[in-house]
Amino acid sequence: MGVPKLWTETIDAHRAAVRDAAMDAMAALVAKHGLVAVTMSQIAEQAGIGRATLYKYFPDAQAVLTAWHERQITAHLDQLTTAVDPAAPAIVRLQAVLQTYAHIQHHSARHHGGELAALLHRSEHVDRAQQRLRAFVQNLIAEAVQDGDLRDDVSTDELATYCLHALTAAGTVPSRDAVHRLVAVTLAGLSAPPR
Amino acid sequence: MGVPKLWTETIDAHRAAVRDAAMDAMAALVAKHGLVAVTMSQIAEQAGIGRATLYKYFPDAQAVLTAWHERQITAHLDQLTTAVDPAAPAIVRLQAVLQTYAHIQHHSARHHGGELAALLHRSEHVDRAQQRLRAFVQNLIAEAVQDGDLRDDVSTDELATYCLHALTAAGTVPSRDAVHRLVAVTLAGLSAPPR
Repeated sequence: MGVPKLWTETIDAHRAAVRDAAMDAMAALVAKHGLVAVTMSQIAEQAGIGRATLYKYFPDAQAVLTAWHERQITAHLDQLTTAVDPAAPAIVRLQAVLQTYAHIQHHSARHHGGELAALLHRSEHVDRAQQRLRAFVQNLIAEAVQDGDLRDDVSTDELATYCLHALTAAGTVPSRDAVHRLVAVTLAGLSAPPR
Repeated sequence: MGVPKLWTETIDAHRAAVRDAAMDAMAALVAKHGLVAVTMSQIAEQAGIGRATLYKYFPDAQAVLTAWHERQITAHLDQLTTAVDPAAPAIVRLQAVLQTYAHIQHHSARHHGGELAALLHRSEHVDRAQQRLRAFVQNLIAEAVQDGDLRDDVSTDELATYCLHALTAAGTVPSRDAVHRLVAVTLAGLSAPPR
């Protein structure tokens, strides 16, 4: 508030700002040139910082890419977990989350899908994010099963696996409407059988 | 029959036999050592043919791997297309095909999934096989929609996309029973809405 920041806080904020600038620069360069071509010099120039400074924060362009991707994924997960009205029934929240997730998949695939997947494939932060997403979706499914809104003849673990795989199709469908239909079809698979 | 083979036919048969031996050797070596380690010398030794002969058929180990994978995929597709009773209703044939496909996914992922996918990712023959599979599944879905057994509010194209993505989950589920449940859940997504 009015209190002056501690020196370490200022340093931390500065460091975070440099890191963010490098990641923003990476994102801009990737959007312009594609992933493979990006160099540390380009990132430094785009971010408006010196190459020497950049190297204090990241050993190479791959590290900037990984950090940027981690920031993206975290932002997406936060978007997923905060987009839902906590007072709504679980089935409504699940629908909102799957809708948002499918749209993120759709958007990501169109912008950098295959190439990025190849470069980041086995990153630890992707595994962690996947696990967090999975747990979140599985908990919502479990709540909706409890409410009697979803089938209870298959474990919530298997239903979450089905869901997340089915929605990867959002990366290949041509329009936002098609993404909506995909979510509806996927949710129908989760529903209680008619008899 | 009793007619002696033409010389060219004998040559062709011999060539096919050498190619098959090389592919069998590759498969055996991959099963034993994993994919990355396999060399042309090992393949020749395992196949019981000379290295010089092997090089007349394949330029490198990657080419043997690709040919072997193409043979596998073709066999799997033949298995899919012939497993079904042509007299059965489309919905029954679809169920059988998806079941078989899911079990192939399950089996393949357990044996060589990630590694093989990384090595063969963008092969043309994989694309061709995917297209053949897609067309086959989409036609079955279209027939079942015509019969009134599946939902008609989403295009057969989008339903096929959903189906094939959902069933990739078969690669990650732990048991054959779980594969069966996954197919049931996926089919439920394709079903006509209750009202």
